[in-house]
Amino acid sequence: MTTPHHPPSSPTRPHQAMGAGGEFDTIRMLMSRWGDLAADIGDDAAVLSPITSGVRVVSTDACVEGVHFRREWIAPYDVGVRAAAAALSDLAAMGAAAEYVLVAFVVPDGWRTALGAVADGIGAQVRRAGARIVGGNLSRGAAFGITLTVIGTAARAVSRAGAQVGDVVVVTGLLGGPGAALAAWESGVEPTGWAHERFVHPSPRLAEGALLAAAGASAMLDISDGLAADARHIAAASGVDLVIDDTRLPLGEGITAQNALRSGEEYELLATMAPSAYEALACAWPAGGVSLTVIGVVGPIGAAHRSGQGAVSPGHDHFRENS
Amino acid sequence: MTTPHHPPSSPTRPHQAMGAGGEFDTIRMLMSRWGDLAADIGDDAAVLSPITSGVRVVSTDACVEGVHFRREWIAPYDVGVRAAAAALSDLAAMGAAAEYVLVAFVVPDGWRTALGAVADGIGAQVRRAGARIVGGNLSRGAAFGITLTVIGTAARAVSRAGAQVGDVVVVTGLLGGPGAALAAWESGVEPTGWAHERFVHPSPRLAEGALLAAAGASAMLDISDGLAADARHIAAASGVDLVIDDTRLPLGEGITAQNALRSGEEYELLATMAPSAYEALACAWPAGGVSLTVIGVVGPIGAAHRSGQGAVSPGHDHFRENS
Repeated sequence: MTTPHHPPSSPTRPHQAMGAGGEFDTIRMLMSRWGDLAADIGDDAAVLSPITSGVRVVSTDACVEGVHFRREWIAPYDVGVRAAAAALSDLAAMGAAAEYVLVAFVVPDGWRTALGAVADGIGAQVRRAGARIVGGNLSRGAAFGITLTVIGTAARAVSRAGAQVGDVVVVTGLLGGPGAALAAWESGVEPTGWAHERFVHPSPRLAEGALLAAAGASAMLDISDGLAADARHIAAASGVDLVIDDTRLPLGEGITAQNALRSGEEYELLATMAPSAYEALACAWPAGGVSLTVIGVVGPIGAAHRSGQGAVSPGHDHFRENS
Repeated sequence: MTTPHHPPSSPTRPHQAMGAGGEFDTIRMLMSRWGDLAADIGDDAAVLSPITSGVRVVSTDACVEGVHFRREWIAPYDVGVRAAAAALSDLAAMGAAAEYVLVAFVVPDGWRTALGAVADGIGAQVRRAGARIVGGNLSRGAAFGITLTVIGTAARAVSRAGAQVGDVVVVTGLLGGPGAALAAWESGVEPTGWAHERFVHPSPRLAEGALLAAAGASAMLDISDGLAADARHIAAASGVDLVIDDTRLPLGEGITAQNALRSGEEYELLATMAPSAYEALACAWPAGGVSLTVIGVVGPIGAAHRSGQGAVSPGHDHFRENS
C-alpha cells in the first residue's frame, strides 16, 4: 500500500472516478481499519525481518467477483474473509506459519463504499493467522478483485512431490460444504447453515499444516480444486497413485462421497505420510478441533486401477469427464 | 502458478469458458514460454533461497486494462513489459536486486489468445532483471489485469523517510515521456518515437538504484505519480521540504518543465543524498547510460515557500489543484 496508482486519463476517467486525493484517502481509510496490523506501510517495498531457521515461502492468490463469488451471495466482509483464507491456505499447505500479507485491490465505483468491510474481513483473518499487512496496491477496474500475496516461514516446507508407496492419505476437517453451498445457490435456494458457513467463512488450516509438517508429512496441499483433482496433483507430482476409499471420506451433514470428491475451495489439507508417522500424530492431534481422517493409501502407479474402487485418484484422469 | 482456480459455476460460466483442462493447458503454455525462468513452479507456495547478507524486500503492483493502459495503445507484449517494469521499479527504488516474481493474471475471454505475448513481455523483463518466476495465479474476469509481486534483496534498503536538510535531490534519466505519450493518444494522435518508447518500454532502474543505495542515498522512490507528487512523498515521510529547481530538470525532447513535473509512470528514481556522497557517485556513475541529474536541495519545512520558486515540492500540496 505504497504509492497508489495515479493512472492516466482513460476510458473510465480515472482522475474523476478516483483521483489522487481520493486514492490516498482510501489508503488512509484502510490503514485506519487495519491499525497495528499494517503499521509499517509506506515505502515502495516492504522489508522482511530475517529468519534464523527454516525457509521463507511465498504464494499469490486472486479472488475475482463473478468468478470466485457473486456479490449477492456473500457480504463484503465475508468476501475479505474468503479471499484471505484462500491465500493463507497455501501457506498452511506448505506447513508454514503466516508472517506477511500484501493486498492488491481492484475496485469498481460500485464497490467503493464496501471496501472498508472487505478490508475488515481480510484483517480478521490476518490477525487470526498472526501475520501483518506490509504492502499492497489500489487500482480502479471494471470488476472487483483482490490479489493477496502471503509470505511465511516453514521449519520444513512440504511439497506435493514426496508421497511414497505405503504412505497413508489423510485429510483434515469435513468435506463437501462449499460444493453444497454453491449447488444450493445455483438452484435458487439459500444454502443450509453448515454448508453456507463453510463457503462464507473458510479457515486456513495453519495450525494443522504445521502439525502435519512436523509429524513428517511426505506430501501436502490444500483442497482447492476438489479432493479427487487435488489427489491427482499429489499423485502426478510424486509419481504414485493415491487410492482413496470413498467410504472413509469425512462427510459434512447431507453430503455424498461423490459430492465431497468434487467440492472445491474446501481449504482443508490433503497429505500423505508414513503409517508410523500418522500413528504418532493421531495421538498428538488436538481433540475437539478439526478432525484428521485416513482416507486411503499410496500405491505404485496402476494401483488405483487394480483396486477396483470407484473413488480412486491416480495419476490418470478418472474424473476428467465430470470435473 | 500452482493450482489454478477452478471456480464454481458463475454468471460468466467459468467451467465452459475456461475449465479445468483449459486452465492447466494455459499454465503449461505459460511455463513453456517462460522456460527456465519458471522452472520450479508447482507447489502451493514457492520456497525462497536463504540470503546470507542484506535484507529481503517485497512489493506488489497491479496493471489493469482501461486504467493503466488502453488495449488499442499498446501490443500485448508491451503490456507485459510495462507491468513487469512497474513492479520491478519498486525494487529499484529500495536499492534492491530482483530475485523472484509472482504473476497473477485475470484474463477475459477476449485476451486469451494474447496471453502468451503478454507472458513473453513479462519474461523479457524478468530475464533482464536476473530474476525468476516462482508462482502466480490464473483467473478469468471481466477486465484484463496483471498483479505482480516482486521479491529482492538489498544490501541496504533505502526508505522514503531519510532525506536530511542539506542533501541534494537527484533524478535518473530524462523526464516527461510517458506524460507526452498519453497526451498525444488522448488528443487522437500517435505519440512521437521517444515519448512512445518511454511509455511502452519503461526500464526499471535496478542497476542505478543499487548504485544510489551503495553511495548512501538517504531517501529514494521511483517516479510513478509524477516528480512533483513523488517529491512530496519524500518530503512528507522525511519531515523536510524538497526545493526543486525546475530549470535543472532533465527534460526529454519537446518536454516542458511543467509537463515533466506531472508526468507519471516514469519509473525513474528520485533520491536524496549528502553532497559529498553525490560527488563520489557522480565520478563513478556509468558514462553513456542513464543520466543522473541534481535538480534541487533538501531544506527544512518551509524552505520551499521561502525559495519563491514555482516548481518547489514541499510537504504541502502546491500541485493538488492540478494533479
